[in-house]
Amino acid sequence: MTRPLPEEVRRVASIGGGPIGGGWTAHFLARGYAVRSYLHDASEETAFRRIVETAWRSLETLGLEEHASLERLHVTSDLAEAVGDAEFVQESAPENLDIKRSLYAILGDLTPPDTIIASSTSGLTMTDIQAQCPTPARTVVGHPFNPPYLLPLVEIAGGRDTAPEAVAWARAFYRAAGKEPLVLTREIPGFIATRLQEALWREALHMVANDEATPEQIDLALRHGPGPRLALMGQCMAFHVACGEGGMATNLDQFGPALELPWSRLAAPALTRELRDRMVEGCDAMAAGRGFEELAAGRDRGIVAILQAIRASRPDP
Amino acid sequence: MTRPLPEEVRRVASIGGGPIGGGWTAHFLARGYAVRSYLHDASEETAFRRIVETAWRSLETLGLEEHASLERLHVTSDLAEAVGDAEFVQESAPENLDIKRSLYAILGDLTPPDTIIASSTSGLTMTDIQAQCPTPARTVVGHPFNPPYLLPLVEIAGGRDTAPEAVAWARAFYRAAGKEPLVLTREIPGFIATRLQEALWREALHMVANDEATPEQIDLALRHGPGPRLALMGQCMAFHVACGEGGMATNLDQFGPALELPWSRLAAPALTRELRDRMVEGCDAMAAGRGFEELAAGRDRGIVAILQAIRASRPDP
Repeated sequence: MTRPLPEEVRRVASIGGGPIGGGWTAHFLARGYAVRSYLHDASEETAFRRIVETAWRSLETLGLEEHASLERLHVTSDLAEAVGDAEFVQESAPENLDIKRSLYAILGDLTPPDTIIASSTSGLTMTDIQAQCPTPARTVVGHPFNPPYLLPLVEIAGGRDTAPEAVAWARAFYRAAGKEPLVLTREIPGFIATRLQEALWREALHMVANDEATPEQIDLALRHGPGPRLALMGQCMAFHVACGEGGMATNLDQFGPALELPWSRLAAPALTRELRDRMVEGCDAMAAGRGFEELAAGRDRGIVAILQAIRASRPDP
Repeated sequence: MTRPLPEEVRRVASIGGGPIGGGWTAHFLARGYAVRSYLHDASEETAFRRIVETAWRSLETLGLEEHASLERLHVTSDLAEAVGDAEFVQESAPENLDIKRSLYAILGDLTPPDTIIASSTSGLTMTDIQAQCPTPARTVVGHPFNPPYLLPLVEIAGGRDTAPEAVAWARAFYRAAGKEPLVLTREIPGFIATRLQEALWREALHMVANDEATPEQIDLALRHGPGPRLALMGQCMAFHVACGEGGMATNLDQFGPALELPWSRLAAPALTRELRDRMVEGCDAMAAGRGFEELAAGRDRGIVAILQAIRASRPDP
């Protein structure tokens, strides 16, 4: 076993010349790693470097690691050169199962045997991607949100042949690399964040198709309604805090019947005692002893800061 | 016709002693209005004033209007006294159709005949609420997002007997009062923002019920994934910008097939040519001539500011 400790990784390979591959490259450079980026076609290099340089400006504002430098980027179209001595590989090839399968068949041999390989796929499962990989135990999904150099979330899920320790290592590595890792309990289509976003997106498309709202109305509603709150507090805790001292229990016991109302095209699950208790216990765990007033004060402080930040970030009209 | 111009309103009545009624009261006071707040029971006054004073701290940070003062609040349990000379009424009574109907039956006589009455209801329709109101033409829905003193959105919809000019006046008034009004094309259950939020919420409940995610995982996914982006850019423009120069057209033409994938329990609508074109035209209108790079730069600047604001708003751990 020659796998380094997650926090001792220094050399990362990034595969893919698009916005996701370029975004990951910028992120890893900003955190002080040496990055080898593989482009399928050398002609992509100009566009690729432009993505990285654009991202760099935001990353500078957020704060670079001590040794971070764009000089530590090496771009190549030789896959073996990109991954040959990598201590971690982030794969962001096109979202096509055949392409990813063929790629992992080769990557499995080219990448040092203990190096973790993570896929940026937003919808494919690692069970499908790793099917032809000779060394599938070290392959995982590591799904970022766009733009990957700014949004902290990385959803991690192993496939059927992934070793549990590979998932644990990936989680620790992403955390060391400044991301917010979320390990899925099991492989589900669309993972967690994309499923939630997709439900919202499909409702939006239905509304536009049925003349109930325009794209402009949908975006205005999201930006000025739930958006600033979701940046700070998830939907579960938002409802927990909205119900005062009674919290999530009051929300479900009092507003549970609203789940039967036609407020979305998505039918709600049966609100069983077990589901109720899971929601309540989950919110209690997140509250971690903080009462309603403390949680609401923190929410308000955060939303005020976000509103001020949005105001200040816009150029004068 | 004695209705004042929307920007000349000075006296507002707020009905309801809960978090929404209290939140509206604080908002209107902060914008410099004189506010008469009606509480169903005088014993609610201490709790009510506490809601207003808590909100006031955030409103001070965001910036008060010149003449704004908590001294301009008058609390009463006499409904006629609250609304008798109001130039605008914001009703936030309990979310119960019988209660609201009975209330509007009385309000219709007590409120000066041209004064607009807006309901904070999050799910009832004005057609149902105004059924027993003797003067329904001036009643509208004016649905805020919680907390109403911070989140700018107000969804406006008239009922069957609402006059179109009442809707137009309400829109102009809310804008003058510092909110972001969104007038619905027609009355739909859950309006726009709540429908979108409800689709997301129901998907979340399904996932918890099926052991696919915990409430903690759902909130973490939202806060660190789509959240910071939704505060700045709606889902339509987020996809438009994510697809580079091709924008929403590329998103739908290339990823349209993903709508068939089981990424949510909500089935997608048929992606007709007409729906595609509406989405593309909506995004083009919002882009208002700005190309991909300018939009992406604005998005990144905003997200950076939001991430910094969230970081700064948290007390040291």
